[in-house]
Amino acid sequence: MTEQKLKELLADMTLEEKVNQMSQVVGAFFNKDMDITAMGPMADKGFTPENVALSGSILGSMGAETLKKIQKDFVEQHPHHIPMLFMLDIINGFKTIFPIPLGQGATFEPELSEKCAAVAAKEAAVSGLHVTFAPMTDLVRDARWGRVMESTGEDPYLNGLFCAGMVRGFQGDDLKEPYKIASCVKHFAGYGAPTAGRDYNTVELSEHTFRDFYLPSYKAGIDAGAAMVMTSFNTVNGVPATGNKKLMRGILRDEMGFDGVLISDWAAIEEIIYHGYCADREEAAVRSAEAGVDIDMMTGIYCENLCRLVREGKISEDLIDESCMRILELKNKLGLFENPYKDADETKEKEVILCKEHRDLAREAARKSFVLLKNEEKILPLGKEKKIAWVGPYVHSRNLMGSWSFIGDAKDVTNLEEAVKAQADTTNMSFHAGSPMLGSDIRLEGFGEAMEQSTTPEEEEAMLLEAVNAAKEADVVVLAIGEDRLQSGEATSNANIRIPEIQQRLLERVSKVNENVVVVLFNGRPLDLRDVVSKAKAVLEVWMPGTEGANAIADVVFGAYAPSGKLTMSFPYSVGQVPVHYNEYSTGRPHVPGKDKDRFRSKYLDIPNAPLFPFGYGLGYTSFAISDVKLDKAELGMEDEIKASVTVKNTGDTKGTETVQLYIHDVAASVVRPVKELKDFCKVTLQPGEETEVIFKITEEELRFLTENERVESENGVFEVFIGSDSTTENKAEFVLKK
Amino acid sequence: MTEQKLKELLADMTLEEKVNQMSQVVGAFFNKDMDITAMGPMADKGFTPENVALSGSILGSMGAETLKKIQKDFVEQHPHHIPMLFMLDIINGFKTIFPIPLGQGATFEPELSEKCAAVAAKEAAVSGLHVTFAPMTDLVRDARWGRVMESTGEDPYLNGLFCAGMVRGFQGDDLKEPYKIASCVKHFAGYGAPTAGRDYNTVELSEHTFRDFYLPSYKAGIDAGAAMVMTSFNTVNGVPATGNKKLMRGILRDEMGFDGVLISDWAAIEEIIYHGYCADREEAAVRSAEAGVDIDMMTGIYCENLCRLVREGKISEDLIDESCMRILELKNKLGLFENPYKDADETKEKEVILCKEHRDLAREAARKSFVLLKNEEKILPLGKEKKIAWVGPYVHSRNLMGSWSFIGDAKDVTNLEEAVKAQADTTNMSFHAGSPMLGSDIRLEGFGEAMEQSTTPEEEEAMLLEAVNAAKEADVVVLAIGEDRLQSGEATSNANIRIPEIQQRLLERVSKVNENVVVVLFNGRPLDLRDVVSKAKAVLEVWMPGTEGANAIADVVFGAYAPSGKLTMSFPYSVGQVPVHYNEYSTGRPHVPGKDKDRFRSKYLDIPNAPLFPFGYGLGYTSFAISDVKLDKAELGMEDEIKASVTVKNTGDTKGTETVQLYIHDVAASVVRPVKELKDFCKVTLQPGEETEVIFKITEEELRFLTENERVESENGVFEVFIGSDSTTENKAEFVLKK
Repeated sequence: MTEQKLKELLADMTLEEKVNQMSQVVGAFFNKDMDITAMGPMADKGFTPENVALSGSILGSMGAETLKKIQKDFVEQHPHHIPMLFMLDIINGFKTIFPIPLGQGATFEPELSEKCAAVAAKEAAVSGLHVTFAPMTDLVRDARWGRVMESTGEDPYLNGLFCAGMVRGFQGDDLKEPYKIASCVKHFAGYGAPTAGRDYNTVELSEHTFRDFYLPSYKAGIDAGAAMVMTSFNTVNGVPATGNKKLMRGILRDEMGFDGVLISDWAAIEEIIYHGYCADREEAAVRSAEAGVDIDMMTGIYCENLCRLVREGKISEDLIDESCMRILELKNKLGLFENPYKDADETKEKEVILCKEHRDLAREAARKSFVLLKNEEKILPLGKEKKIAWVGPYVHSRNLMGSWSFIGDAKDVTNLEEAVKAQADTTNMSFHAGSPMLGSDIRLEGFGEAMEQSTTPEEEEAMLLEAVNAAKEADVVVLAIGEDRLQSGEATSNANIRIPEIQQRLLERVSKVNENVVVVLFNGRPLDLRDVVSKAKAVLEVWMPGTEGANAIADVVFGAYAPSGKLTMSFPYSVGQVPVHYNEYSTGRPHVPGKDKDRFRSKYLDIPNAPLFPFGYGLGYTSFAISDVKLDKAELGMEDEIKASVTVKNTGDTKGTETVQLYIHDVAASVVRPVKELKDFCKVTLQPGEETEVIFKITEEELRFLTENERVESENGVFEVFIGSDSTTENKAEFVLKK
Repeated sequence: MTEQKLKELLADMTLEEKVNQMSQVVGAFFNKDMDITAMGPMADKGFTPENVALSGSILGSMGAETLKKIQKDFVEQHPHHIPMLFMLDIINGFKTIFPIPLGQGATFEPELSEKCAAVAAKEAAVSGLHVTFAPMTDLVRDARWGRVMESTGEDPYLNGLFCAGMVRGFQGDDLKEPYKIASCVKHFAGYGAPTAGRDYNTVELSEHTFRDFYLPSYKAGIDAGAAMVMTSFNTVNGVPATGNKKLMRGILRDEMGFDGVLISDWAAIEEIIYHGYCADREEAAVRSAEAGVDIDMMTGIYCENLCRLVREGKISEDLIDESCMRILELKNKLGLFENPYKDADETKEKEVILCKEHRDLAREAARKSFVLLKNEEKILPLGKEKKIAWVGPYVHSRNLMGSWSFIGDAKDVTNLEEAVKAQADTTNMSFHAGSPMLGSDIRLEGFGEAMEQSTTPEEEEAMLLEAVNAAKEADVVVLAIGEDRLQSGEATSNANIRIPEIQQRLLERVSKVNENVVVVLFNGRPLDLRDVVSKAKAVLEVWMPGTEGANAIADVVFGAYAPSGKLTMSFPYSVGQVPVHYNEYSTGRPHVPGKDKDRFRSKYLDIPNAPLFPFGYGLGYTSFAISDVKLDKAELGMEDEIKASVTVKNTGDTKGTETVQLYIHDVAASVVRPVKELKDFCKVTLQPGEETEVIFKITEEELRFLTENERVESENGVFEVFIGSDSTTENKAEFVLKK
């Protein structure tokens, strides 16, 4: 449809029609027969059947057959035959589930995540969907917050690359193209920093940090063309994001130039009342509409109030027109006016979903996401002839998908025992649960059946005993343990960040009878791993690895594939250390590790300042030597570039991949700068003995930050360039910026 | 001296003289013979003998004789005979040590702290001092930060009352009066919120929270007439406070109207270089002088650079004149031009210091600061006839003074055994250390001898055994345990906030053989007390109670005095819950305790949201009933007031004191408001069966806050008024503000 036609359509719509475009309802209401009298719970939210019949979008339904039917019936009855938008949370895959985003971050390959997003988009598109609420690009620093699993980590630059990559993967170059869906960058803004790691809690960030660290990755997604943005639940400087005009009009629209559709998070327009920001639903409608929230997700507040408010002159119809037009434009970009079903196709569904190509990519992404945290005596990889006891609740579990993978089906997941059997003669091997996922002491309420299984202490002891006996007989024990998949994710804040106690007990008992313990660790967040690391010779972090996770684990454990992942979120020493992140600001009293007698320093008395495993850290099956940093000149000008280079050599005896990381430190500036900031990286794969030169180009642009003048610009002075294999590297050189 | 004379003096001073007024040196350099060639470490800091001979103030010396000699020699040799200012950290007492400020907060009696400050001022003044670096009024929410002991807690209103009270106590109405010293409010601003509780770490606060919660108590001190303010070590919105012009000129001088002397914290001007805010010492001088820092504490940066910078035209001499004039004015306010020795008096020193009146006040303050956290079966108070085993490292310790009480002398402190023996026939009682303060597993480096004592595991076991044997024989065990005094205070951040492990072991062993355990807990910060509370029938929080602390404990334990203190900082459930405070902002997804099946709420999965002991909490030896809240009208106007009243009745069988607390909740506002805010309180003492009406007046002024318009004002709407015995009270009524 042409822009002109769209305008004519808008002009022809009634106020009710326009306002209802701004309302989103759940698909659970729409049955195949489109029985709009069977409202059920929708009525409680404030929706009338008329609202539903005019609404602009649906959340939570899927399947080509269902959505085509709904769309057909809906378009036919709509006065202007405007099609619905079908939206869903497609986070790390649709049916083919990839590693959780925190694991994807560890690949240091945004282009891989782009491919994963494209696959997810394809499976979603043939299932009739038009929009995904992804990527989440919230910067995270606090492992107590369960939703860190949905982020790619603590670095604004890396998050920006992943966010842009995923947006491109979902959307392609043109939303009209086959198998492309619209991407919604979330949660704008700063949702990843809830106080004390408690989900939905107040966010306290200085304006400076908020702008310089938290906003850039959203901006990267917007610059990559994201069609939508979602508001966050938190307040920004005292005002809930969803009603925050300064944030949404001032920063998002005016500064960042976002002209797509802004949607509230689930019921967030209603929740600004609970925030105490609005006295009632009418005020919530006014505040949110004035902030420029185009779609009200899952409350009846817009459709209940906006028409009346316009008629009473309390808000301008221009606001409605503006929002409605943005929604119509998105529908038009997706080509829905021409083809309201877009890619929905029952035949394609069968062909595409979980096809070999998709599974292969999931396996590849999983292998690349694994981070080898420890590998004493090179115990990994394991020879297939070894007598191996495979122990732990993750030996048989098919719940290898992150908590936001609800479209994924456990029955499509290979479990670890099956994966091992597919790759090795297991005559000498044995497989044991060892313990339930959660002990009888933990009962997580409100999580449905999945979490409410429980075993008796006697059953637990019997499982433990079986595992211990098997461990006694084995050469090596592979312990597949970790968090339950529902222990991380939304609304799963934890004050203790350790593996479930019963699994810790399993590890302790097993490690007492067998000194060759390899832990394969499943989890959605950084954990306090001191008691895991001290009891295992090797620890392989596999996150929630997805549909093909178990096959990927077998690949890596048996050495068909060497691990190369690097952490993108610091693993704290203990929960008393959070929030902790590598790119902290310089303080006036820095602590020098080892100089513990220096009393008045910024440090803890009882633990180190350093996390247990830092950002950028990860081992492989070989070793690398990185030479001193060489700069081709000592001074950088405005139009200039400096080449910073190192020679990387594989000093081990197997092929391996190293992620060479470049960090910069701005030594003195008009606002305090981080001790280090990731500015570039390069993955190199080398044969044993092989070496290569890695050259990074540094330009003035990379040195920019939000200065005291409130402009993003660079400042003259000395800069340190660090190149190494993780964020603790002290391998550095210096140059001067002289503009 | 008249203002005119002061101006003439300033005009007559050389640039060097003026700049050196702005430098502070340590007294350790000045020996009695004023040998300015014996510079020692001062030279390393950048001072020349000429600088010292012209400097404006000295830090860290005391004693009438010493200071009179220094002053005499100094004034005689100074070209303009300008006297020195003698400054020192006099936090909770000079020689007579009062409870730490966090304990003083628990009295809910700012007027008592005013008296304590007046006593401290008197002892300091006769010892020749002119200025104290107190009060610290930094708002605190994170128990990991050791310096919470120097604050009065987490409430801005209460902190403001204490800050103002202490300022009045130190300064009186006129600094020229006998026994008055100048007060320095610190640390401006926001020092109490270091990220992850790590001292000197970056502070992240939204502009709104910073202004509405953190600034008010400094303002209260300034309004009370504080002569000085100290800069903080942290950054404010990315810029170190000490070089932060927006903060110091914009907020402190222009908005708050402070016209006194602004001093840097120790070496803070140099530290803005380590912050990476300045490239070198010259830039640090410029930035700090331009921010309006009048005195450079303990670096040679001002005296090294400012004269040259003025001569080179890089900074204006007006800045120097302005700062110098403020310093001269302070000296003049203290009357030093007429009498440079002020109250320094060797005879008075002997008479005044640690006199009975002062010790009595210290005992009174200590008793009122104690908080009874638990008292099962009314085990406290103890009859003196009881067979009591007094056990724990605090039975014999004289280190009952907080870490900032370095003028206080342990030899002047009564220990607990002595205090008990002074009040009771102890034939049936026994006294045992039970354990060292810190076990052989803890070695806190850099703390000097005090902390480096250590026992062998065998010695520890022998001590434990003796205590256990005594416990077996006793009716009751009083366990005097807690943190070492040096475990809290500056630069004592801890990731674990529990009592030392060896003392926990002592408690466990003792509680196994005797079910009547009373814990008397010494500490400087809120601790995770779950394992203490579960093993004791009573827990009496006594903080670091000061010189007369042990006598006060005996008063309370034996019932001569009933405890009445109330916590002013939440005691977290565990370290994974911090920062935690009662006056948190409303969220959009509030958790309702008990409704644990509501999944998508702001809560933890593994611990409650509520702290173990909330703000305002504290038991007594009797019980009180507080009636429903009665409001005399339902609507409040601009010039109006509402009377909110309750009837308080002593329903127990002994006399007791209750602190009745009034909280307000602004239900909807243009920025999100706290769930509750303390707005008033009243301490009432009642005989058994006695009742009284407590009436609070609520005016529009109390309802003001920093609105979205960035003005401090109230907004129309509904307010809830809570009146109860702690911050968890749900005893409430509502009114409407209609201006």
